[in-house]
Amino acid sequence: MAGGTKRLPRAVREQQMLDAAVEVFSEKGFHETSMDAIAARASISKPMLYLYYGSKDELFAACIGREGQRFVEALAPAGDPNLPPRAQLRVALESFLGFVDEHRHSWMVLYRQALAQQAFANQVRSSRDRLIELTAHLLESSTRDPEPDMDFTIMAVALVGAGEAVADRIAGGEIDVAKAADLLENLAWRGLAGRRRTDTPG
Amino acid sequence: MAGGTKRLPRAVREQQMLDAAVEVFSEKGFHETSMDAIAARASISKPMLYLYYGSKDELFAACIGREGQRFVEALAPAGDPNLPPRAQLRVALESFLGFVDEHRHSWMVLYRQALAQQAFANQVRSSRDRLIELTAHLLESSTRDPEPDMDFTIMAVALVGAGEAVADRIAGGEIDVAKAADLLENLAWRGLAGRRRTDTPG
Repeated sequence: MAGGTKRLPRAVREQQMLDAAVEVFSEKGFHETSMDAIAARASISKPMLYLYYGSKDELFAACIGREGQRFVEALAPAGDPNLPPRAQLRVALESFLGFVDEHRHSWMVLYRQALAQQAFANQVRSSRDRLIELTAHLLESSTRDPEPDMDFTIMAVALVGAGEAVADRIAGGEIDVAKAADLLENLAWRGLAGRRRTDTPG
Repeated sequence: MAGGTKRLPRAVREQQMLDAAVEVFSEKGFHETSMDAIAARASISKPMLYLYYGSKDELFAACIGREGQRFVEALAPAGDPNLPPRAQLRVALESFLGFVDEHRHSWMVLYRQALAQQAFANQVRSSRDRLIELTAHLLESSTRDPEPDMDFTIMAVALVGAGEAVADRIAGGEIDVAKAADLLENLAWRGLAGRRRTDTPG
């Protein structure tokens, strides 16, 4: 195996570097992460790392790009047009939360770290905006007789915000995916604590 | 008025510096903000600024401290023990969203910027945790016959997450406080889109 790592295809080596970078960024945060630490985690030399990614910013952008792509792919099943809208929303919730559960580092880097950096925040916001649009569409499609003043976009903002907050708890191992999906589904359709009850008519 | 600003009491000058700092931090973000820019905004010299606040980190921490205190004060009316829990939750929502509406820079600095900096995130998280505890308590107090497996803490996490996401839209001028408070109240008690309807019995 002497020198074996040098013969790895470029694409494989890139993925290894990104794997290491996502881990270190999620543990230490963008500003506290050094290229040295990432090179060490990936078991390569720092010059090699710089050969592939010219700067920490470039490497971080590549991480967001890859993780964002995975995130979008994870949500794809929710787009199945054969499912009724409400089932699509359930699938979207489970896909979203399941992704966070299986890719905790990814979640920390993709959302929490990247949103914190003004240079990268727009990249993440555009993914979030697509998620909000999808959610608004599913809420609207599955609501019978909506009241005329219902603003589905701001509802979707609220639901996605709730989903992100709950996702943080999943990433922290505090709640499991099925329970979290039930909670958010209730949030959308029945309310949290007051389900199946109304205090005041009209 | 020659030399007048030099005779300002220390406490007044401190507040002016913090006002300027909160503005600039909220506009540019922590890392892109320079002490020069803050001194210029406050119409004082940079040495004077350093005399009061020894570093950008120290100044940012002072901003978070002051804005956090204001935030907690704004929520105080919700703690009125003479109100029933559900009315307390409504007051808490309106106080929270009203604070964001009136102090948009504060919101951007307090929450969004500070959470992004690992060194300051704990300071904000502890305020957020108190808000989650308060919300969980109010949800639990106002739910009659709760199901045995109801986890009010994670419900509160979801509701506060939704509130933060909606607050961002208030800070951006996209929705007004009353409409946002109605939305979040519905979220807590009746669900978003499915209000007053249930699809499946049991």
